[in-house]
Amino acid sequence: MPAQLSEADRLGLETAYLEAKRGYEEGGIPIGSCLVHHGESGKPKVLGKGCNMRVQKESATLHGEISALENTGRLKAGVYRGSTIYTTLSPCIMCTGAILLYRFPRVVIGENRNYVGGEELLKKNGVEVVVVDDERCKELMERFIREKPEIWYEDIGEETPK
Amino acid sequence: MPAQLSEADRLGLETAYLEAKRGYEEGGIPIGSCLVHHGESGKPKVLGKGCNMRVQKESATLHGEISALENTGRLKAGVYRGSTIYTTLSPCIMCTGAILLYRFPRVVIGENRNYVGGEELLKKNGVEVVVVDDERCKELMERFIREKPEIWYEDIGEETPK
Ligand SMILES: [Ca+2]
Ligand SMILES: [Ca+2]
Ligand SMILES: [Zn+2]
Ligand SMILES: [Zn+2]
Repeated sequence: MPAQLSEADRLGLETAYLEAKRGYEEGGIPIGSCLVHHGESGKPKVLGKGCNMRVQKESATLHGEISALENTGRLKAGVYRGSTIYTTLSPCIMCTGAILLYRFPRVVIGENRNYVGGEELLKKNGVEVVVVDDERCKELMERFIREKPEIWYEDIGEETPK
Repeated sequence: MPAQLSEADRLGLETAYLEAKRGYEEGGIPIGSCLVHHGESGKPKVLGKGCNMRVQKESATLHGEISALENTGRLKAGVYRGSTIYTTLSPCIMCTGAILLYRFPRVVIGENRNYVGGEELLKKNGVEVVVVDDERCKELMERFIREKPEIWYEDIGEETPK
């Protein structure tokens, strides 16, 4: 059952999904992410966004979340701590580590049916984890894994199953 | 007491140190890293190397290890699993996550006096962790933290101590 989403969460998840979709249209792995800061006024603001760039940039590290962090650029510690990070797919252990490094208090995940990453480690470290179970995120990722399994498994450091 | 280093380890640590030194000379954070593959012949080969690029590229994600992984480019899962990653400083939780994602069996760390990252998590996941306690790595890092503390604390997601 999809979670009830706030205005900020709808903005964040939609932004992440559109990044994933753009990545897919570029021939890449459709995982998107963004950072949303909760300003003093309470008005949410997208600080930056990005999608997985393994294919487009021949990158071994630009997962969706890393890409969003990189595109956002340098921030002071306090800004991350006042933000939520959105990602269309459950974050792998590298991206989980990035979330912990910058001490985001909250992560919103589009879906974790196609992959489960470091959710338990996030929770153990006090990060609030919300899984939306979003149909569009699920379908797009499932389609990519079916179409290009070898690229997907490379992205998570696994051999493609026989 | 410095560990006894094999030929491959001397090659890897020296390569990582020279990356850190280059980073320092560029005005950046002096943390370097490289990947060394243990070929079938037993002859070690540097697959790629890099240094922290926060200052040079205004990057929030190119820590030394991420930079080395990125410069190395896309690899199949098996190549990482036959390699050692070298880093001049104990890897933060993001870089720890990257090491776990790609299942490196072994990490060689120049020093962990200036910072202790995810060493325990690596060990808990079966990664061999070797800390060399290298004087040159320690001195270079200690010098940078003294000279530009605000950049160092930004790099680890912390406020600069008063
Ligand atoms: Ca590249
Ligand atoms: Ca940048
Ligand atoms: Zn990831
Ligand atoms: Zn790091």
